[in-house]
Amino acid sequence: MNTVSPPIAWNNDCLEILDQTLLPEVVRLLQLQSIEAAFEAIQKLRVRGAPMIGITAAYGLYLGMRTIAAGSAEAFFRHLDEKIAYLAGARPTAVNLYWALQAVKSRVVKEGDRSVAELPARLLELARELHEDDRRRCDAIAEYGQEVVPHGARILTHCNTGALATGGIGTAFGVIHRAHLAGKQVHVYADETRPVLQGARLTMWELANAGIPAHLICDNMAAALMREGKVDLVIVGADRITTDGSAANKIGTYGVAVAAQYHKVPFYVAAPISTFDLAVHRGEEIPIEVRHEDEIRRVFGKTLITVPDAACWNPAFDVTPPELIAGIVTERGIIRAPYGENIRAIAGTGA
Amino acid sequence: MNTVSPPIAWNNDCLEILDQTLLPEVVRLLQLQSIEAAFEAIQKLRVRGAPMIGITAAYGLYLGMRTIAAGSAEAFFRHLDEKIAYLAGARPTAVNLYWALQAVKSRVVKEGDRSVAELPARLLELARELHEDDRRRCDAIAEYGQEVVPHGARILTHCNTGALATGGIGTAFGVIHRAHLAGKQVHVYADETRPVLQGARLTMWELANAGIPAHLICDNMAAALMREGKVDLVIVGADRITTDGSAANKIGTYGVAVAAQYHKVPFYVAAPISTFDLAVHRGEEIPIEVRHEDEIRRVFGKTLITVPDAACWNPAFDVTPPELIAGIVTERGIIRAPYGENIRAIAGTGA
Repeated sequence: MNTVSPPIAWNNDCLEILDQTLLPEVVRLLQLQSIEAAFEAIQKLRVRGAPMIGITAAYGLYLGMRTIAAGSAEAFFRHLDEKIAYLAGARPTAVNLYWALQAVKSRVVKEGDRSVAELPARLLELARELHEDDRRRCDAIAEYGQEVVPHGARILTHCNTGALATGGIGTAFGVIHRAHLAGKQVHVYADETRPVLQGARLTMWELANAGIPAHLICDNMAAALMREGKVDLVIVGADRITTDGSAANKIGTYGVAVAAQYHKVPFYVAAPISTFDLAVHRGEEIPIEVRHEDEIRRVFGKTLITVPDAACWNPAFDVTPPELIAGIVTERGIIRAPYGENIRAIAGTGA
Repeated sequence: MNTVSPPIAWNNDCLEILDQTLLPEVVRLLQLQSIEAAFEAIQKLRVRGAPMIGITAAYGLYLGMRTIAAGSAEAFFRHLDEKIAYLAGARPTAVNLYWALQAVKSRVVKEGDRSVAELPARLLELARELHEDDRRRCDAIAEYGQEVVPHGARILTHCNTGALATGGIGTAFGVIHRAHLAGKQVHVYADETRPVLQGARLTMWELANAGIPAHLICDNMAAALMREGKVDLVIVGADRITTDGSAANKIGTYGVAVAAQYHKVPFYVAAPISTFDLAVHRGEEIPIEVRHEDEIRRVFGKTLITVPDAACWNPAFDVTPPELIAGIVTERGIIRAPYGENIRAIAGTGA
């Protein structure tokens, strides 16, 4: 990567993140000093990608708690629950956000014998552990994913799932990057991923930094590309996966999956086990965040592309049903159909 | 329409067009005084849409010939063929462009008894007839199309096919507009249509002017919209239709057709008979214009959305095969499968 610093790091007693809304033109690091700054960074997509959001939230939770002088464990946990509820509201569909915060909390609860004064520092340690764990998870996903990437594969991906989205080398992008590093001579087609253009801005930037040959396409070109026989497989990330194997991911993913099935191109999802929401059984039950119309009306919040008062429908995610998914690459291996039982077998247990 | 002038008109001895590259922010009329200006307007998408391109080319042919002092009919037709070849190169995939120019030529050839001095003026008359014919064709398409639009229909469309694309009320848009005027209470979802955003810029502008309720969506949202059960039918235009019923249209159309079939939503094409290319039998034989990468890299030629040297794949059209098309609405009625024989029966004859 050409970036001087990693896209997320704990430095000088604050959380340093790369402001992804400015890429690829401007590489700017932000120092987040408060929970409100972490909330804003998540909500405004300065950090995005399920694992990266979880890591940011965990550090953000520490930022919100480090100045709380709680007189008792009870008071501490009351504050903690408030902060968790606050942060979880920054991106309602991102299960990883909630999962990361709950994981931190349950660790602290389990370690009940600490003094209240020690608890904030422990939150920071746990955020750092979460970060390091994600790095290792990405490596494992990348490794298991090699099974589905043949030599010379032409791979279509959607949105961004690389180092900018995770605490490591990425999920779907990590699989691609690892294949490239292994000399498989892959070629990538990156969907631009309207409206926020994470594919054009972030994935193309990461591909260029990694030296991976790639073409950018508009989202509406994916089907035509498949018809021309130029796509050997699709691999994307996920924000939430239900127990039936339905995967919520960036809007547009579902249309790619439908086109992939029509053209008999295998469609893979790559995501850590934490993406599975074992409390939700069907894709239809996943709440879909609908974002502001201006994201569609104005490119980068500036360039107006339509009549100023155009009504827009702007769902941030869609849900791909299991019958369109050839496999889900996780850090514990590739989960395939029948998803119901295989997800419970692999994801329904502790690490 | 809120425009003071129609989007194309012959006024004061020159061709007046609305510069569609500036809409919806700027409404600017251009006076085209030469064939080169007409070529440039077609190539740079200042006018677009198959019928509108044909009309512009016919007027452009007159602009190129009016100053030619040919000494003989032979010399006149030699110049005419050169000008036709020149104009036809402005948009190679648009069969209507070539068709319009050939139609004008064959009329002039048939009327062989004129003096050479009269021929240029005759070219102008023929361009005006073509323009007026298109207005009537649009009306007929709009009328036949009513059969497939139920009351309260929620209609998805792609690109722009309205008054800005034709010499009349439009093709697919004309069907929608007529349904609205008939009180059918339709609701439109308009694909933004990357990379040039004709749906966001032009269709949303025409919908607002006509008072038709509508939402703008990004192209990659169409499949999710169908999955939510919000689309009753799709109707789009076409740039070229082969004898097997394959329809070349703006890039992204094919992906919508694939998604429509998956969701059992009927997918219609609306186009004048002149769109049929009876010399081409299979969709795979249609040459696809690949346009400059900067159309993808820079929104409106300005706002950079990716790394500056990103390689892009930018086909202007894709081809939808007949098995995905529920019917083709023409000025002679709706053509349905089996397309091979029905296209020959309806389109393979004179008017």
